[in-house]
Amino acid sequence: MHPITIKEVLKGKLLLQDITINGWVRTFRSNRFIALNDGSTINTIQCVVDFEKFDEEVLKQISTGAALKISGTLVESQGRGQSVEIQVNDIHVHGTADPETYPIQPKKHSLEFLREKAHLRIRTNTFSAVMRVKSSLAFAIHKYFTENGFYYFHAPIITGSDAEGAGEMFRVTTLDDKNPPLTEEGTVDYKQDFFGKETNLTVSGQLEAEAYAMALGKVYTFGPTFRAENSNTARHLAEFWMIEPEMAFYDLNDNMDLAEDFIKNVIRYVLEHCKEDLEFLEKRLLDEEKSKPQAERSEMPLLEKLKFVTENNFKRVSYTEAIDILKNSKPNKKKKFQYPIEEWGTDLQSEHERYLVEKHFKCPVILFDYPAKIKAFYMRLNEDGKTVRAMDILFPGIGEIVGGSQREERLDILKQKMAALDIDEKELWWYLDLRKFGTAEHSGFGLGFERLVLFTTGMGNIRDVIPFPRTPQNAEF
Amino acid sequence: MHPITIKEVLKGKLLLQDITINGWVRTFRSNRFIALNDGSTINTIQCVVDFEKFDEEVLKQISTGAALKISGTLVESQGRGQSVEIQVNDIHVHGTADPETYPIQPKKHSLEFLREKAHLRIRTNTFSAVMRVKSSLAFAIHKYFTENGFYYFHAPIITGSDAEGAGEMFRVTTLDDKNPPLTEEGTVDYKQDFFGKETNLTVSGQLEAEAYAMALGKVYTFGPTFRAENSNTARHLAEFWMIEPEMAFYDLNDNMDLAEDFIKNVIRYVLEHCKEDLEFLEKRLLDEEKSKPQAERSEMPLLEKLKFVTENNFKRVSYTEAIDILKNSKPNKKKKFQYPIEEWGTDLQSEHERYLVEKHFKCPVILFDYPAKIKAFYMRLNEDGKTVRAMDILFPGIGEIVGGSQREERLDILKQKMAALDIDEKELWWYLDLRKFGTAEHSGFGLGFERLVLFTTGMGNIRDVIPFPRTPQNAEF
Repeated sequence: MHPITIKEVLKGKLLLQDITINGWVRTFRSNRFIALNDGSTINTIQCVVDFEKFDEEVLKQISTGAALKISGTLVESQGRGQSVEIQVNDIHVHGTADPETYPIQPKKHSLEFLREKAHLRIRTNTFSAVMRVKSSLAFAIHKYFTENGFYYFHAPIITGSDAEGAGEMFRVTTLDDKNPPLTEEGTVDYKQDFFGKETNLTVSGQLEAEAYAMALGKVYTFGPTFRAENSNTARHLAEFWMIEPEMAFYDLNDNMDLAEDFIKNVIRYVLEHCKEDLEFLEKRLLDEEKSKPQAERSEMPLLEKLKFVTENNFKRVSYTEAIDILKNSKPNKKKKFQYPIEEWGTDLQSEHERYLVEKHFKCPVILFDYPAKIKAFYMRLNEDGKTVRAMDILFPGIGEIVGGSQREERLDILKQKMAALDIDEKELWWYLDLRKFGTAEHSGFGLGFERLVLFTTGMGNIRDVIPFPRTPQNAEF
Repeated sequence: MHPITIKEVLKGKLLLQDITINGWVRTFRSNRFIALNDGSTINTIQCVVDFEKFDEEVLKQISTGAALKISGTLVESQGRGQSVEIQVNDIHVHGTADPETYPIQPKKHSLEFLREKAHLRIRTNTFSAVMRVKSSLAFAIHKYFTENGFYYFHAPIITGSDAEGAGEMFRVTTLDDKNPPLTEEGTVDYKQDFFGKETNLTVSGQLEAEAYAMALGKVYTFGPTFRAENSNTARHLAEFWMIEPEMAFYDLNDNMDLAEDFIKNVIRYVLEHCKEDLEFLEKRLLDEEKSKPQAERSEMPLLEKLKFVTENNFKRVSYTEAIDILKNSKPNKKKKFQYPIEEWGTDLQSEHERYLVEKHFKCPVILFDYPAKIKAFYMRLNEDGKTVRAMDILFPGIGEIVGGSQREERLDILKQKMAALDIDEKELWWYLDLRKFGTAEHSGFGLGFERLVLFTTGMGNIRDVIPFPRTPQNAEF
């Protein structure tokens, strides 16, 4: 049957038994100590070799990165730093890794260097820890929703609709790339394309989630979404994964309650299940920040920051209150903001969000009731006629991590809002149907998964928390 | 706080308490009995209205599809078919559903009709049951892998590689659709496209999964994949979700063991967690098949079929044995096969697979060790030099549900196979790196999620087990 993992072996239950494990060499010291890792845990197991017993030709093949099968006896360790080790009886070399050419050597590599080797960087402690935490977060998300009566559904990736307006889209086509067929009017004839119409990659599954919420009650998507925007920042990807819950009969307060409980819960889950990986990542971050000036370092070590989020209430502040705070803030008065806050109605920039979260409140913040003019057409208009029931959750160091709203469930008002924005009713006939037949108040939000991973792992660049990042001018692997 | 769901209420623990629920009217009989459903369960709760107490104008608005908030006392039911019911004190109509125009009336609609209303069909018993089962299957999959030490990772959706050869691909682009920029040679200049190269939608995350397995040990993907093939069948979609586990240090036998254990486990999970939905779907299937000739009906009712799969070993048969069986089979001798089996090396068609599974073995079958010529380049060559360590799992009524293999881990042989197929080494430089550095035996498979849902729900058309199907000439919603 399947070989046992190092994670299992390190639990120490197989003491004094003969076992066989597989893994990759992290280091080989003094022709005697092999530190072997198989990805099941951040820890290595020490395999002690009596080199006189082994063929020199075999020992020569053992270097960082080589894949080995090792049989031996599990014994209590003599050395420090581990409780058990293997007295090696047999070594089989699956595959070598020539030290002259293998790029992942046991020394510090820059994250930039490793991005060029995305297929191999996962063999480092940093990336394997990040990806194990990410996997655990994904499971925590499914577990949370399942236990709370939500149904998971798959929103379409290829969409024939471009009415969502969340951003620039990628076109999906099988037409001839150089000489596409043309209509009589001289435009590209998408009737001849695969789907018989122009299609794009989705920017959000929300509209479809609304259709499902209006039948199943509580649903969520967890899938890839796309933005064809030329944003080369540490927070943007052209392809990223989003979690979008949508709940019938929820108003904006229910929505905020859910979002906060959800985030706390999944972070609690990884604190419980990924302790060793998070401890490693905390140490990594401390090391990295040593070379930075004090003002740029994190206020808290990683684990403390995560616990802080799970244990404290998010501060809920209306947009109007936030504008007041910002208007009267020191950086605004001293003209330190690139975009000074002058009046109600202006959109908040990253610098303003960071000021609110990191300087003023010093905790996660939920901003709500934004001006209608700066938010999407589907958000519910308040009685005041000028704000909508929107909410954004802002996190320290990350900025916006959640964007959501109560949706406009009133057919007449929705139609007015669409008309004002020149959105064709024919494009969204089915979305309007949801308001014609059995409409009810409902709400939902979107959470960018990679931003949550950034926050949870303490990594600084979103390209380092997705296996093979897609950004402008980059679709390698 | 959040309103309670009907699923909770039906548990009966709130007997004699005043409660408030929300939902959609399924039926309203005798101006007295409202059957209300909120999607949390296939069951409705009966709400008993004393019509003399309510405004006629309110009662008039109550028809199939209307969204209501109902307050009342939970009491033991007098009628048959339910244990509890609500004595209604108050009704609020969230939204009406005009019986003249609302398409989902309480009568039998054809699946074809409902496909045109994919945003509303989820309000029927059939589709809500299918989608709840599907959601539960998805969770069972994540749970199984998590509990068995696998890490979930996201393979890229947009890919710059077209070397996988699993099928026709969709192009992803932001270039001008009518007048794309051209190179000096007159071809489209993809250097000017968003990613600086030609990109497509992925057909499989396997190659990337191999990179991750060769560091984390056991990994899996669960994400959308695409085929730009003009297949208008009941088993094909242009966009579908696939589960792809990949395991370092697993050979083909380990792979078969895992696949079988995995499928049995997730079906067991839904048998346990979706009993009411599956019972409904079983009854639906029996009704549907009543009009069919005996020979076309299912051999077993749905639940029995699912239990059969969980309780019996899959039959493992080599391709060579399978060819012998087929060659000597009645339909082959009587020339009933459209593609007669004449010699070793021929690819198996759907008719052959169905014969093996449904007529000969009458159980799920794992075929293994296929001719190298009819399988992909990355499958491990056997000692015989003519077969590869491939395996397909065939299911009754569905055909191929899993395709997998042990991968070719030997650099020299992999290069030879790529050369023979004219696959450019430069395209897959990183895939070859996995064999240069720390290579080891490894295996994996792909399971089409919607095909598993088809099998589990007893539905007949794959368009009915995905919310908004994408097929040739169809990308509505």
